[in-house]
Parts: sequence; structure tokens; C-alpha cells
Amino acid sequence: MQNARKKVVVIGGGTGTFTVLSGLRRYPVDLTAIVTMADDGGSTGRLRDEFGVLPPGDLRQCLVALSDAGEVMRKLFNHRYEKGELAGHNFGNIFISTLEQVTGSLDRALDVAGKILKINGRVVPVTLDKIALHAELKNGKVLRGESEFMEYQLVSKFGVKKVFLQPAGRANPKALEVIKEADLIVVGPGKLYTSVLPNFLVRGVAKSFVSSGAKKIYISNLMSQQGHTDNFFVSDYVSVLEAAIKKRGVFDVVLYNTKRAPSGLLHKYADEGEPVLCGPLCLKRNFELIGEDLLAGGIAKTAKKDMLRRTLIRHDPDKLAKALMQQLDRS
Amino acid sequence: MQNARKKVVVIGGGTGTFTVLSGLRRYPVDLTAIVTMADDGGSTGRLRDEFGVLPPGDLRQCLVALSDAGEVMRKLFNHRYEKGELAGHNFGNIFISTLEQVTGSLDRALDVAGKILKINGRVVPVTLDKIALHAELKNGKVLRGESEFMEYQLVSKFGVKKVFLQPAGRANPKALEVIKEADLIVVGPGKLYTSVLPNFLVRGVAKSFVSSGAKKIYISNLMSQQGHTDNFFVSDYVSVLEAAIKKRGVFDVVLYNTKRAPSGLLHKYADEGEPVLCGPLCLKRNFELIGEDLLAGGIAKTAKKDMLRRTLIRHDPDKLAKALMQQLDRS
Repeated sequence: MQNARKKVVVIGGGTGTFTVLSGLRRYPVDLTAIVTMADDGGSTGRLRDEFGVLPPGDLRQCLVALSDAGEVMRKLFNHRYEKGELAGHNFGNIFISTLEQVTGSLDRALDVAGKILKINGRVVPVTLDKIALHAELKNGKVLRGESEFMEYQLVSKFGVKKVFLQPAGRANPKALEVIKEADLIVVGPGKLYTSVLPNFLVRGVAKSFVSSGAKKIYISNLMSQQGHTDNFFVSDYVSVLEAAIKKRGVFDVVLYNTKRAPSGLLHKYADEGEPVLCGPLCLKRNFELIGEDLLAGGIAKTAKKDMLRRTLIRHDPDKLAKALMQQLDRS
Repeated sequence: MQNARKKVVVIGGGTGTFTVLSGLRRYPVDLTAIVTMADDGGSTGRLRDEFGVLPPGDLRQCLVALSDAGEVMRKLFNHRYEKGELAGHNFGNIFISTLEQVTGSLDRALDVAGKILKINGRVVPVTLDKIALHAELKNGKVLRGESEFMEYQLVSKFGVKKVFLQPAGRANPKALEVIKEADLIVVGPGKLYTSVLPNFLVRGVAKSFVSSGAKKIYISNLMSQQGHTDNFFVSDYVSVLEAAIKKRGVFDVVLYNTKRAPSGLLHKYADEGEPVLCGPLCLKRNFELIGEDLLAGGIAKTAKKDMLRRTLIRHDPDKLAKALMQQLDRS
């Protein structure tokens, strides 16, 4: 099977995973996104509350990233209503949630949505159980639900002691299968506690990840996230993930950005986070560390008003994909 | 061009047109639905009010009738939300209206929706202008908007003097073109004043209809509609349409049902309307009159709660299509 396309799995959710998928989809690889199902805020949270569906938002971003259906369909699925009773809702979220109701299964809904969006790859929810992210702060207080945890003021004041799922949820068998068969698994970038880590808290995922023969790469965030990862070095992200996965040295490679963002942008961003640096502990590392220019130039044309700040400093999908493909060739 | 498929145009909107299209789509004809754009109630009305879009509801029904995309997509597009902030909305309506916003044009939106639904035919809005149906009652009162006109109590008390559009709207050039080139034009069945007639009130449509070389068939309703068409005979429907089209004898054929619905059903239906009979004026007719069994047996499986009563007595799509195809073969 020398000609079989190599299997690349991206684990995460949110904008970081969108960026990785957007870059990798141009390469001839067999691409699967494993997506966190812990979101309960915004449009996704309203749909969960009203229809008892699984959270569509992160799935939708991955579907759009992998879509070959053209600009209109991509715009349609990302369309956010600005006014009226649908204000704050997102069309793609409504689409996925309605399909889940009509078909009675998120799996079938994703099949249908994937065909309509002509996706080049697969999008796999990490679990099909209804989970909720909880965070215990260092003062003992427990925050229930991702949206409560995202209110950074409280988190910032006391610091995160532990993050867990309640209920934990069982892994989607499809997710375990693609992890097992992968040639390369890419973790991140993305919000550590809310987009990346929750995937490994689902029962069975960490174990399957550890035992997979795939080359494992973690892509560090560009910027720390206020309240959640203040003053984090690259090695701190890795340590938190290793602790959740219960295996030190689980990553073969850690990729991080070395190009400094323009001072003006850093200044604007200052109240949200700081650039993530390598840090002294990287010297004692148990992974191959690769620092490269992974930074996107200019400002994302697709940025919406409410996303503008967090997309000011972002990864370049092509630079990321190139770096990842080099690792795949060497695996 | 002996082998070219014959061109059949169905003019209307609502359940009647859905039934005709559902039957005709199984035949090898070139099928186009010209659809009224006067609806302003329910889910459609809310979307018009909030987004300033054109009314999607009648278009959606026609798209679904012509869809070859399978049961899931048909169910999805007809899905009506029962609870939460989306309650009363219909997914297909939201889909069309969002596409209209994203593409900036209802025409493009229908292209995209038609592809996704794999429609076997075309769906053409009679106008792309924003029109509103008005009804003047015999006491001089003017009802503004279709939904006001649909409140039958007032209409019932005073009777309809005149129905008009304000603004009148210009015909969609595509609609005029398909009318001109049609081999057969089917008008109705459907609510006379709100689904069928408004098409002919749009500027240019009546004239184009009169001058088309197509064979023209009117399909009479099975039941009268309380307040709107009480005690109407088949010939009364024809007369009202002829007056709006400003041409007597414009229909070549009028098709009406001769099979009596079961007494039990008629009894249940009694407060909504009575069976439409031929009537004495049909003797002085200026059209070929064809009476046949066009009645559906049993109760529609797809009937939703709120549609149940009006679908108790309904046309059979296959019987209708067979009768129409006989006319086409003879044209």
C-alpha cells in the first residue's frame, strides 16, 4: 500500500483547528478532525438548551474548513444573524442541530452535512454523549459548564486547579479508530482548557492516543489566554496536556512560533494575553522542539467584528501545513 | 425537436401546487413552478419582517415537491420547530432566507437550494419585488396583507369586492419567459385569492398568459374556503380568474373532481368549507369541462398536526398528473 494516502488526525476544536485543517486540506492526505464536544455557550448553548442536541459549533467550523463546496456554502454555514429573534445564532449551527433532530443522530447529520459541504476529509465528534466541562479553582470553587469557565475574571483571581468532565462521556468509537490508525496526530493549537484538553478527558481517548503508533505533534498557541494560561511557556502547555493524558513524553514534536508579532498588534492584544515563549523548562524537554515562523501576516479578511481581536495575531495555515507535512514525510 | 421534453408550467403556491408538482415530477416533462410571492404570515412573515427578505414559504414547498435528494432532505426542509425561540419557524424557510441574505439575491439562493435539493425542474418566483396583497371588502374596508385577509370572520361578514397588490410588482422576466414557451400551463388548485390569483395581479403576467400558445388548464378546488369562496361553483372560480386576467374564455380546459368525499370527512370539514360543485353556469361555459375522480383516498401520512384538517380532503397527485398528461398528449 505504498500509494495509500497518509492518515492525519487533528484533535481540537475552535479557530486553531480550523486553521490547521484549512492548511492541510490542500495536501493529498487522508484528513480527520476529532472535535471537542464541551462547548455550551452562545448559539451552540442556546441550541443545546432548547433542543437537547449535541454542541454543533466546533463541528461546523471543521466542516467549513474542509469544504470544497465553494464560497457561497462556506459563507452560508458561517453566517451569523445580526438582528431579530435569530440574532447571535449561526446558520450552520442551526443546520446541524436541525439535521440531528430530523435524522435522530448526530452521526447521520454529519454525514449529510459533509456531503452538502463536499468535505475533503471527516469530522468526528470526540464523544456522542452529553458532557459538561467543569473547572475546579484553587480556592475550591467549581465552575460548571464551559461558558462559566470562560468568564476569566474569577478564573484569573484564583487560578485553575483541575479541569474535568461531568459526566465524563465515552469516546466515540470512530474517534478511537482513527487515532489508532493515524500516521500523524496533530494536537492544537487552541484554547488549552476549553478546546484541546477536553478531548483527552473523554473516557478512552488518552489511552488510545498513548498507544497509537502515530507521530504526535503539539502545536503551541501564539498567545496566552487571560485567566487560563497567564505566563504559560510552551512547556507549561505540554505539561498540562501530559498530566491529563497521564503520560510524560507523549509528544514526539512540539511546534512553536518564533516570529514576533508587530508591537502595535501586541499592544492592542495586551489585555487578552502575551506571546507564548519557549521558556527555561524547554531545555529539559522530552520532545523534539521546533521553532519556526508560523505567524500569519496581515489581518484575516474573514474576521468578523466579534472575532477581530482574537484573529489579529494568528497562525498562517500554509506555514503550519508545510511544517506538519515535513514531519509527516519524516515519520 | 420531436424528442424535446414538453414544457409544463404550474402557476400557484401552497399545498395545491405541491400536489400537482409531486404528481407531474414522475413524468418526463420539463417542469417549472411559478410561485406567488404574497405570503406574509407565520414563519414566512417573521422572516420578511426581520430580514426584509422575499417570502420563502411557497418556494420551499415547491422545491421539496420537486426534490430528488431523498427523504432526509425533504424532511429537513419541511421541519417545523415545535419549541424554543425557533418555534413556529420552518427550517426550509430559514435556509432560503439566509441564502438570500448571503448571496444578495433570491434568484441565486434558489439556484443553490435547487442544487442541494436536486430538484427535477425549476422554481420561479412570480416577482422579485416586495408586494403586499390587499383585499377590499364590500363594505369598503381594505385589508392590508395576506395574513389579515386570511382572518375569515370579517371577510365572511362583508364579502370580497376586489383583491389587489400594493405595490403591484413587476413580473420576474424568467416567469414571463417560461409562460411564453410553455406547452401546457396548469393553474391551481389552491386558495383562490391568496395562492392562485395574486400571480396574475403582478404586472405583465396576465398579458403574457393570454398571449402564450400553451394549452391552459384550471384545476378547481375540492372544497370552498370559508369567508373567501363560500357557495362558489366551479364556474365562479373561473369567472374570478378571468376577470383578473381580463380575458373571458382564457382557459381551454377546466378539471374538477366528481368523486364525493366520505360523509364523515365532509362532516368534520363542515365549518371550513363545502365541496365545490359544477354549478348551473357550467352549462354556458366557454371551456372544455372535465369531471373525474381526482380525490385522494386515506389520510396523508405526512400531514402535520396543524395541517390535518385541510389535508383531510385533498387531491391525489397521481390522478391529477394522469389527467394533466392526457391533456398534454392531446395538445
